Amino acid sequence: MATPTPLLKDELDIVIPTIRNLDFLEMWRPFFEPYHLIIVQDGDPSKTIKVPDGFDYELYNRNDINRILGPKASCISFKDSACRCFGYMVSKKKYIFTIDDDCFVAKDPSGKQINALEQHIQNLLCPSTPLFFNTLYDPFRDGADFVRGYPFSLRAGVPTAVSHGLWLNIPDYDAPTQLVKPMERNTRFVDAVLTIPKGTLFPMCGMNLAFDRELIGPAMYFGLMGDGQPIGRYDDMWAGWCIKVICDHLGLGVKTGLPYIWHSKASNPFVNLRKEYKGIFWQEEIIPFFQAAILPKECTSVQKCYVELSKQVKEKLGKVDPYFDKLADAMVTWVEAWDELNPAGASAKLANGKA
Amino acid sequence: MATPTPLLKDELDIVIPTIRNLDFLEMWRPFFEPYHLIIVQDGDPSKTIKVPDGFDYELYNRNDINRILGPKASCISFKDSACRCFGYMVSKKKYIFTIDDDCFVAKDPSGKQINALEQHIQNLLCPSTPLFFNTLYDPFRDGADFVRGYPFSLRAGVPTAVSHGLWLNIPDYDAPTQLVKPMERNTRFVDAVLTIPKGTLFPMCGMNLAFDRELIGPAMYFGLMGDGQPIGRYDDMWAGWCIKVICDHLGLGVKTGLPYIWHSKASNPFVNLRKEYKGIFWQEEIIPFFQAAILPKECTSVQKCYVELSKQVKEKLGKVDPYFDKLADAMVTWVEAWDELNPAGASAKLANGKA
Repeated sequence: MATPTPLLKDELDIVIPTIRNLDFLEMWRPFFEPYHLIIVQDGDPSKTIKVPDGFDYELYNRNDINRILGPKASCISFKDSACRCFGYMVSKKKYIFTIDDDCFVAKDPSGKQINALEQHIQNLLCPSTPLFFNTLYDPFRDGADFVRGYPFSLRAGVPTAVSHGLWLNIPDYDAPTQLVKPMERNTRFVDAVLTIPKGTLFPMCGMNLAFDRELIGPAMYFGLMGDGQPIGRYDDMWAGWCIKVICDHLGLGVKTGLPYIWHSKASNPFVNLRKEYKGIFWQEEIIPFFQAAILPKECTSVQKCYVELSKQVKEKLGKVDPYFDKLADAMVTWVEAWDELNPAGASAKLANGKA
Repeated sequence: MATPTPLLKDELDIVIPTIRNLDFLEMWRPFFEPYHLIIVQDGDPSKTIKVPDGFDYELYNRNDINRILGPKASCISFKDSACRCFGYMVSKKKYIFTIDDDCFVAKDPSGKQINALEQHIQNLLCPSTPLFFNTLYDPFRDGADFVRGYPFSLRAGVPTAVSHGLWLNIPDYDAPTQLVKPMERNTRFVDAVLTIPKGTLFPMCGMNLAFDRELIGPAMYFGLMGDGQPIGRYDDMWAGWCIKVICDHLGLGVKTGLPYIWHSKASNPFVNLRKEYKGIFWQEEIIPFFQAAILPKECTSVQKCYVELSKQVKEKLGKVDPYFDKLADAMVTWVEAWDELNPAGASAKLANGKA
């Protein structure tokens, strides 16, 4: 990219679940101040979050969610950061960047602070290449291109719907790995962005994530976690499996790699184990389900894909646990609520004929 | 890897096509001297290649190839570096590293010379993870692991058959890209190794490549290029498409990324355009062919897979050009010659039940 990255100030919202640490906003101030923040508070609505001066923000607590969605508020998780997806729904912008409050500004190997938002925007504005692997990684980066043997007909790529960023310091490990490797830190700065190939699933982490609401928003649902649910810490994973299957079907791209943020604090592995426990078993059935999921041609919008997927979840995963019946219903409620709040129906049409 | 990488001195051969530049061997001396070299001379057999003292090597020219293979020598390209695959066939070792004579020792960002061979061996000795993408890249590297959401049942991985290394300085571009971007240099050191996911094809470059002969050798055929053939510079690409389809079927892994070599000299783009010309059209049909290729369950060895693939090439690509009929026949000749020279039949059995 020889041209400077546009900042898209009027086209991007930053969505943050409960901010427990105000240093977080101070550290990001130079990068976040130009943008609108949507803060979704996951716990007790009577507690107030103090946002420092200078930030343009709106704050939603549980009472707001109940008031805005009415009975459909049941699809939004309570006492869990999964509630952040409510922010995706109420945003009116084209792009979303979401980040956790224990993620700070990372430095590149030269010591320069990384503008994570700028890199996400670059990733989202460049096409993806899911149909064939490029060994020099993102061919649209400055100084790179498609290598010998890359078919010319595929070089236009497809629109990018999701940009998945990574983490220095504390890696995003599950509870068993945290328990086994309590001291492991990620110190490796990998200077790459790459497209996750079509047909390949990946573990999408919600810590440092950006996406195009118009292309994939209605599928970016973080499921039912936290209070009253048998499982936690699978909110972003669930969204990642769903969006990947739908992006593959609609001819959209998912990128991973840069930008890095600095993940400051490992969450408690014992608490995590309790949250993840059932998920560790369930994911062994969930992943083959998503690997085999096929969406019919009639599914030409994200909404149609998502409703179809919810039916397949009910049919195939309902046997695993009644939780999936409830989740499938919540998926439908989510899409209905999305369409109510976004009546223009900013839905992705089939991006190309190759779905 | 906390343990030092074994050097496998008695288990690896280095295969080099014609060496036109003796600086090449001097530069690699500290790294290559412990190994046996197999040099395959592609041009006039009366010209002699002078190998400096201290190297353990064997040299084959066209007369040797004709003598050893008899009529089956027709499957080995003449006046083209594709002839290097003859070296894969005559080796008696488990591993092969192949490199071009314009590839020098690269330096890592700290200025340290990179031991490419050591990294290839690391790549080949660690499992691959083709069934699910790990966002922190190779989970078997020191300081990395599987991230949250990676199914535990897939963490053993599969045996790695191929390690594809990259190039600093002159990138491996096709003639059109060389013509359009004559000054582009690859200066980005990406500190990553990753598995190419199952079902995804990639452009395999033969400049800096290592593989496990026992697992995939009989499919590492570089086709018919050079003298008397309508095409060049697709030798490694052809091998890459074939081995990927077969690795996916047999449950074997292909890694790409580190190690880098320093690619010193761009080949002439006008000469390359002449060689590539037909390939630019043909690859638009070849790639969908390989993407759709399915090998039946009965194909439980590399040889059986390769013969089956040759039949499909004849049936599906023969229509594109009579060249593919000839190539399909040569694929069969190659496997027959391989089995004659390797009578123990070091063939890969199904590596796991998930093919």
